[in-house]
Amino acid sequence: MKTLIVHAHPEPQSLNGSLTGLAVATLESAGHEVRVSDLYAMGWKAVVDAADYGPHASSPLLIARDSGRAFDAGDLTPDVRAEQEKLLWADTVILQFPLWWYSMPAILKGWVDRVFTFHFAYGVGEHSATRYGDRFGEGTLAGRRALLSVTVGGPESHYAARGINGPIEDLLFPIHHGILYYPGIEVLPPFVVHGTDRLTAEEYADVAKAWEQRLLTLESTEPIAFRRQNSGDYEIPSLHLREGLEPGGRSGFGLHVRG
Amino acid sequence: MKTLIVHAHPEPQSLNGSLTGLAVATLESAGHEVRVSDLYAMGWKAVVDAADYGPHASSPLLIARDSGRAFDAGDLTPDVRAEQEKLLWADTVILQFPLWWYSMPAILKGWVDRVFTFHFAYGVGEHSATRYGDRFGEGTLAGRRALLSVTVGGPESHYAARGINGPIEDLLFPIHHGILYYPGIEVLPPFVVHGTDRLTAEEYADVAKAWEQRLLTLESTEPIAFRRQNSGDYEIPSLHLREGLEPGGRSGFGLHVRG
Repeated sequence: MKTLIVHAHPEPQSLNGSLTGLAVATLESAGHEVRVSDLYAMGWKAVVDAADYGPHASSPLLIARDSGRAFDAGDLTPDVRAEQEKLLWADTVILQFPLWWYSMPAILKGWVDRVFTFHFAYGVGEHSATRYGDRFGEGTLAGRRALLSVTVGGPESHYAARGINGPIEDLLFPIHHGILYYPGIEVLPPFVVHGTDRLTAEEYADVAKAWEQRLLTLESTEPIAFRRQNSGDYEIPSLHLREGLEPGGRSGFGLHVRG
Repeated sequence: MKTLIVHAHPEPQSLNGSLTGLAVATLESAGHEVRVSDLYAMGWKAVVDAADYGPHASSPLLIARDSGRAFDAGDLTPDVRAEQEKLLWADTVILQFPLWWYSMPAILKGWVDRVFTFHFAYGVGEHSATRYGDRFGEGTLAGRRALLSVTVGGPESHYAARGINGPIEDLLFPIHHGILYYPGIEVLPPFVVHGTDRLTAEEYADVAKAWEQRLLTLESTEPIAFRRQNSGDYEIPSLHLREGLEPGGRSGFGLHVRG
């Protein structure tokens, strides 16, 4: 495998730092190639602005159009081009981050906002009576697999089906389906560590063992069975899921996973 | 009303810029006080790091503990303190942003990550057999109301109950419930403009009229009926919703809205 780990924590001596370090060591020991984008260490610029789109950015700025033009012309900034190249190099992508306010840290959202440009991650493919562009299972990054490795301060029960925060799979759906599956990446079930506010050394040993196990079985892990956009399951162009496809009573985000 | 508008778009001559400008004009004409945090114009620092927590930040950095200590000691950076003061001043908060990759732009997530510190927005209140801290309907920002004003490139059908992106109310739930309601803010139904990739001048006139109408009725609009954490609806400390409370068949995020 060729694995890109995108790491988003400011403290190297954190649980996230340990999990990334363990991932690099485990994958390399097993003969795999690994590259790490350590966003804090890189001083990653988190915010989209006109400076991203080179000397030909329009005024007023039109983000989709400008990012697509800059992508086509090779005018994107070197930091963004380097990340796009890493994504094209990789067959496996791991995003390592703490869940802050029920989503990614801003620096990682800024990696998505800046790297997933028009014509690279969206605005790809043809529209017709049976296709609505290459999206949701098709696209520039098809053939790749991704995995979220997420640390969560609170206890697992708060993120269960009836937990007050909402189910963790629903909280991660906008990332799994909306960010990763959109440009074609298959998404593996996430690795989630709960209760990190009070993790003991003994508990960390169990976490580390479970993480190694997940890393060593990445190639045989079944992805989440998201429905492909252009498979016939959706009406085009409304992109409503056709009636009658859902397993009994499923609703909300769960509709978009095959039964 | 005293309204704080947090504005997150890099281009003043954008739809988001127009909506914020219209909000300021409309609210001030109606005799209300308005303050705007224009995050791009302010050069808002989007990423949490040790520099946020003053000269006494610990090494290794422990974000919750350090942010709580810095909050208690008045050691937070002036930019963060100013935003906390604006939130305490306001009775109404509007977040104006484009939906990028199914969530907020990084700069706005970074406003949340940095301003919503321990002891200010979380880690508040007592834990007991009947209370799990002041959260979800109680907390530092109780008594305030908030509204998301969101521009969305794609058409409304893609965000409907059976739409491929998932329902817009579920995509916004982590912000509504997880960010705003958590420290006690009541959340009004969002103002969402769809199809902004192709918005015509005639359509903008209708959008502007609808936005003015929402702004002038903020005080009489009913908030989303999220369940209070400490109301008896949840078991403590598991924070599972008690069985039998949900209206017929509701599941997922919808469980946390009263019937």
